[in-house]
Amino acid sequence: MRGEIIAIGDELISGRIMNSTSRLAARRLFLLGYEVRIMQNIGDDTGLIGQTLLTALARADFVLVTGGLGSTDDDLTTAAAASALGLGTAEHPQVLARLQARLAAEGRQAEFNMANIARFATLPENATLLDDEYRMAGYLLFYQEKPIWFLPGVPSQMATLFENKVIPELLRLAPPPPVHQQIYRSCGLKELAINVMLKPLEEQAGIEIGYYPAGWEVDVSLTARHNSPQQAHALYQQADAFIRTQLGDNLFGEGEQGLPLAVGHLLAQCGKRLVVAESCTGGLLAACITEIPGSSAWFEGGVVVYSNRLKENLLGIDPTLLASQGAVSEACARAMAGQALNRLQGDVAIAVTGIAGPDGGSADKPVGTVYLALADKNGVSTQCVHLHGSRREIQIQTVQRALDMVRRSLLTTNAY
Amino acid sequence: MRGEIIAIGDELISGRIMNSTSRLAARRLFLLGYEVRIMQNIGDDTGLIGQTLLTALARADFVLVTGGLGSTDDDLTTAAAASALGLGTAEHPQVLARLQARLAAEGRQAEFNMANIARFATLPENATLLDDEYRMAGYLLFYQEKPIWFLPGVPSQMATLFENKVIPELLRLAPPPPVHQQIYRSCGLKELAINVMLKPLEEQAGIEIGYYPAGWEVDVSLTARHNSPQQAHALYQQADAFIRTQLGDNLFGEGEQGLPLAVGHLLAQCGKRLVVAESCTGGLLAACITEIPGSSAWFEGGVVVYSNRLKENLLGIDPTLLASQGAVSEACARAMAGQALNRLQGDVAIAVTGIAGPDGGSADKPVGTVYLALADKNGVSTQCVHLHGSRREIQIQTVQRALDMVRRSLLTTNAY
Repeated sequence: MRGEIIAIGDELISGRIMNSTSRLAARRLFLLGYEVRIMQNIGDDTGLIGQTLLTALARADFVLVTGGLGSTDDDLTTAAAASALGLGTAEHPQVLARLQARLAAEGRQAEFNMANIARFATLPENATLLDDEYRMAGYLLFYQEKPIWFLPGVPSQMATLFENKVIPELLRLAPPPPVHQQIYRSCGLKELAINVMLKPLEEQAGIEIGYYPAGWEVDVSLTARHNSPQQAHALYQQADAFIRTQLGDNLFGEGEQGLPLAVGHLLAQCGKRLVVAESCTGGLLAACITEIPGSSAWFEGGVVVYSNRLKENLLGIDPTLLASQGAVSEACARAMAGQALNRLQGDVAIAVTGIAGPDGGSADKPVGTVYLALADKNGVSTQCVHLHGSRREIQIQTVQRALDMVRRSLLTTNAY
Repeated sequence: MRGEIIAIGDELISGRIMNSTSRLAARRLFLLGYEVRIMQNIGDDTGLIGQTLLTALARADFVLVTGGLGSTDDDLTTAAAASALGLGTAEHPQVLARLQARLAAEGRQAEFNMANIARFATLPENATLLDDEYRMAGYLLFYQEKPIWFLPGVPSQMATLFENKVIPELLRLAPPPPVHQQIYRSCGLKELAINVMLKPLEEQAGIEIGYYPAGWEVDVSLTARHNSPQQAHALYQQADAFIRTQLGDNLFGEGEQGLPLAVGHLLAQCGKRLVVAESCTGGLLAACITEIPGSSAWFEGGVVVYSNRLKENLLGIDPTLLASQGAVSEACARAMAGQALNRLQGDVAIAVTGIAGPDGGSADKPVGTVYLALADKNGVSTQCVHLHGSRREIQIQTVQRALDMVRRSLLTTNAY
């Protein structure tokens, strides 16, 4: 069952907007075992929309179209698709009525004129609206038995309809072949090292392994396929066990579970609270942690001691230490972690100080030099790493290293 | 001069990786006045690569291909392109020699076998390598006078070669038509309000206006086209002046200049230093500021007082205030800003406290309720906003509001 994804909008081909919706759909479809061969971004151009849709229909078993369903004059998807497929369009009075009622209730009539609203309510013939409440655009159309889903370009609306309407219907229309997949999230091993470890699996029929390094992390994907569901399952289980053994405690999560969540689970398990002291990451470490709903259960907070003065005033770092060893030093990281543990009253404190660049590097401390320190009741441990990349890449890798340092210390202490 | 972009890699169609390189290229080309009509992501599939390339060449004047130039077995771009275009491939001995020398110097021979290295050094006949140092893959090929650039999928390498090799050569081969463009970065006005203000421009021939809301920001794009360079320039100047007048002090920057940089420039101008106290944004405000190189010149640091205990211990917020009014209150925001100004010794302090959700909302303080406070030598001002969206969207909008609050206060005080 092959699919194609077409994203429509001038903001995509002008590069103003990053297309996140196609990626979301592609990832979900892949993990379900459907094959997406081509993803296209095209502009708001009637001729091109029609031609691209027809080409996709000729190649694929289903097509997902996003964008261009809005109420403004540059939203051309419905008209373009209808004319390309030789379908008429019809205005749905019940949709129109619902829309007007809701806009009135929300006092938003002023935002739309009649033509705008009518545009929302006008669909190709035989199209089925996806949102029962008509809160958002989006419909399903069949053309020569092939389903075409038209979804809004707004990421949140697209995601809702895709998950609640497209996926269930697709699973019903065309159950995917027996395939088992897993994403293993790891850090601590280089891509090449994992590659060597997993070579035996790669040579096995029905098994596909993918490697996706991202800074200090390497994601490994496993796909097990076999025409017999039993065989596919057996293949998967055996490969899964092998991968877990090989990755060992470098494996921190699965699928969408990132490092901050993995750290959060470990902290929650042992009822500990984390505090952070950041210099070169400038708040990014705390921001990655607090992106997680419910992180307040295990994250106390932190300090962004970007200037030396704040290192002294907020954490009481000894000015003579800063003068003699510099803010980017093991001694400073050690002091930051120890003081954060005391002053911020956490059970575990992590501190980072380094040179994110592009300026500030020196011969003995080049850009990318980062000191990390972890403090808990057992004492303080430190690490020095040399990172490469842009300023932001160095900050992100530092955050990954810091979280992994906390994770490994908790694995040890929890083991007691 | 029409272009197409083809990005190659299974990690793209499986949705594992967000395609950021095509967007980067599309944005740059758009701003230069070139037209990109179609951007495609396809998998590592020899047949599909060839067919997609030929289709693009039939439609476009130039093609940009990224990915699949690596040294592993799933890198098929060069072989696929050569066979589709009916070209032979040749191994470049000088490239091979350079590669081996560098790997030896870096002690990395073990990472590659001969076949891997040979793959790097094998190009379609008449291809011109882009990197004079052969540090990365990437070459230029002409097919029926049309340039095709093949670039690595690695974002940093792609960006380097695109900017330093592709753009200059493209400008030389086909200078863009007389077009003037500008992106206006604004916050404080709704998209619809700006739309109404700029209606007169939209009706003008040769002028295109685009609106791109992102949370609390709205970007406005202006494109002025005319066959006569003088006319194009005149059109642009007149429209540019009109837009600046209409946006007034809601205009904070141009092009890639975001809010943090705009705030930084204003702070630097008046020699003031910023400090932050964050609750619901959990470090994201500081992280957005410290993403900017050189921000240490005007950013002192901040505290992430995520828990009430830290609000008391780090900022000395009165526990009775927290008990009576709650941490999400104007009084708490006011106290946080005032205390941050004193304890962190900044010239301007901004504080945010709110409910980012998804949990924690109540009838009187629903998710999205955020209080902001700004403190400087003139006193403390506060704001209460009600934001919508996911947890992260609410955090991002809060950061935008906070930065804009600082920006507007500096515009006023700098005016003295």
